[in-house]
Amino acid sequence: MKFGGTSMAGTERIRRVAGIVRRQQEAGHEVAVVVSAMAGETDRMVNFCREANALYDPAEYDVVVASGEQVTAGLLAMTLQAMGCKARSWLGWQMPIHTDNAHSRARIESIDTDALLASMAAGEIAVIPGFQGLTDDNRITTLGRGGSDTSAVAVAAGIKADRCDIYTDVDGVYTTDPRIVAKARKLKNVTYEEMLELASVGSKVLQTRSVSLAMKEKVRVQVLSSFIDENAPAADTLPGTMIVSDEELAKLELEGLDMERQLITGIAADKNDAKVILTAVPDRPGAVATIFGPLAAANINVDMIIQNVGREDTDTDVTFTVPAADLDRTKAVLDEHRATIGYQKISTDPKVAKISVVGVGMRSHAGIAATMFKALADRGINIQAISTSEIKVSVLIDSDETELAVRLLHTAYGLDG
Amino acid sequence: MKFGGTSMAGTERIRRVAGIVRRQQEAGHEVAVVVSAMAGETDRMVNFCREANALYDPAEYDVVVASGEQVTAGLLAMTLQAMGCKARSWLGWQMPIHTDNAHSRARIESIDTDALLASMAAGEIAVIPGFQGLTDDNRITTLGRGGSDTSAVAVAAGIKADRCDIYTDVDGVYTTDPRIVAKARKLKNVTYEEMLELASVGSKVLQTRSVSLAMKEKVRVQVLSSFIDENAPAADTLPGTMIVSDEELAKLELEGLDMERQLITGIAADKNDAKVILTAVPDRPGAVATIFGPLAAANINVDMIIQNVGREDTDTDVTFTVPAADLDRTKAVLDEHRATIGYQKISTDPKVAKISVVGVGMRSHAGIAATMFKALADRGINIQAISTSEIKVSVLIDSDETELAVRLLHTAYGLDG
Repeated sequence: MKFGGTSMAGTERIRRVAGIVRRQQEAGHEVAVVVSAMAGETDRMVNFCREANALYDPAEYDVVVASGEQVTAGLLAMTLQAMGCKARSWLGWQMPIHTDNAHSRARIESIDTDALLASMAAGEIAVIPGFQGLTDDNRITTLGRGGSDTSAVAVAAGIKADRCDIYTDVDGVYTTDPRIVAKARKLKNVTYEEMLELASVGSKVLQTRSVSLAMKEKVRVQVLSSFIDENAPAADTLPGTMIVSDEELAKLELEGLDMERQLITGIAADKNDAKVILTAVPDRPGAVATIFGPLAAANINVDMIIQNVGREDTDTDVTFTVPAADLDRTKAVLDEHRATIGYQKISTDPKVAKISVVGVGMRSHAGIAATMFKALADRGINIQAISTSEIKVSVLIDSDETELAVRLLHTAYGLDG
Repeated sequence: MKFGGTSMAGTERIRRVAGIVRRQQEAGHEVAVVVSAMAGETDRMVNFCREANALYDPAEYDVVVASGEQVTAGLLAMTLQAMGCKARSWLGWQMPIHTDNAHSRARIESIDTDALLASMAAGEIAVIPGFQGLTDDNRITTLGRGGSDTSAVAVAAGIKADRCDIYTDVDGVYTTDPRIVAKARKLKNVTYEEMLELASVGSKVLQTRSVSLAMKEKVRVQVLSSFIDENAPAADTLPGTMIVSDEELAKLELEGLDMERQLITGIAADKNDAKVILTAVPDRPGAVATIFGPLAAANINVDMIIQNVGREDTDTDVTFTVPAADLDRTKAVLDEHRATIGYQKISTDPKVAKISVVGVGMRSHAGIAATMFKALADRGINIQAISTSEIKVSVLIDSDETELAVRLLHTAYGLDG
């Protein structure tokens, strides 16, 4: 079980969490719980570090910021004890959770689980601070912001848990953002790859790294709401969303256990990109490399790329998207390399949205993209760029049309509840 | 060097502390620094624990409350780095500082200093969170409130430091409380035993345990103000108070290095006791045991005891003092055992003060107590009880006369500056 910072913000909320954990144990499970720091606490610590030293040593930063999860782990353990449960905290260095030396953004390498499993087998609930680990030279590391999801999946993999329940602000993964489409449905099952595609285009239910790790380690992850009634039954019977492998999904479908599944699993919208158009780039071999080489060197992540026929036969327009936050840096890099690239003009447009339809069903069915293009064309929505992967089709449109596009695609793919 | 919570309260103050530490290193010393949590932070954590579980598990309490010193240790290390010093934090479990298993009030058993000394020899300033340690089964302990002084002395003993400088809210140990006697003088040297006697009667400059440990381990402790000018010289030449052994004091006196030393070192006043009088207790063998046995069993610390002749030859009045905080419990215990003790009446008086004159010079000089009694009698101050040790004479008086008594004794023993 994993609980985020909102769920752990103060002793009253920790008591709610303890109630949920206890029910899970009463349902007959051995339970390990991974917790985040109280909401706001990590920010407070990060600010202290910035004030202390603008170029702070990440090893000392980790010492400071890891304290937040240590506090909530101790408090949850003692709250569980107050409810009559056996419980104890296991800090990152106590298990230990071994990581590499990349302080402030470490990766988990392995977890020693013998003592933990023995304690759990003896009926003790294990309470584990997320986000933290230990280097080979005995120093604290942290996994980067949002790292507690990854801790939870790693612990679940380490102890070979039947399930990793991640309690969040939402009660599952939806076909699309319910704030945009009232008819959005909660999904019963999502595959790891679908979740990765949905996460990368804006449905930030889980940290992407945690989903990748779950896929690699074949951990069954369930997304649940932490705002459930305190007297609700244990999570086994709660209607969250299960994130599973392709194989498990196929099995569930064969057994008729996911009747509502459509070809398309979900629709995501992402307004965080900006469009860049370079006009009249000479149309010669290697031209594109002169553009994207310097951007890659500047660590700017280019997403969709299209190349139009230009005004003259000898040149072309190149359109691409970058994160809106990197737009100024992108222009600076392109200005600097103007002579090499040889473009006539840069124009930019931050008012774009990327709409993606995602679904493993796409692999075996043609016509998914055509449905999308037709639905958008019928309502006069102009597609500015297209990109596809095996289980995703994305289009770039005017951001004013985001909500309209999501709604009509939701209907077009038969997702309305 | 050790800095308390007031000195560590916020990044601006930590920068001041870092400046003081750096000067010490620049003066040619290898430096280890022990720090407290930011003022108020430990209280905040203790409150969380109380809210979480009124009967909290001390092992989990230690996990929660030890976080405050972890934060300040990391922040001081990175602040020192910002000033161009090499520095790193060493958490209790990293050195480790081995303690017993008495969570929330653990005692230090030993400290592994090899890695620490190697790091210091390489020019790194060691920053060590006070108050925390590690049990044999790898769990965090804390040493009890104010334990950071003890951590500092233990580390100083472990690394065989030349000196343990404790920076406090005051700039040294005074002949008496300067708020009572404007002519109070800062002492150049105090012996461990004098410091213990002064601490136990109300001059709370250092935690008593840390002084006992310093005496046992022969650590030279210097009490200094943390509010010194940021550009003041290193502590070697600062006028703090040095706490030393009897032997070192004798040597200093022989060498003429403590010319101002008087027979009496200091005068302390303590208003935290209350007086209890049991009237007409039967005067027979074992009578006193019937009183103090039950009080000891109830863990009530009886201090001064006097037995007067009673109204009849066959009985006696017994007067004693207990901590004022325990007065209600004391009365309850005495009520319960009234039949066994056989007293006629209990009367109590919380309006008393214990005035103590302390000094190792007392050992070799008679007449110290006589001077005290005469000085008080001359001003009509009534002595209600007397107790003495080898280097201390204490009297119990009406608490309204506390300031007057301290002032006139300060003059009588030639302590006025």
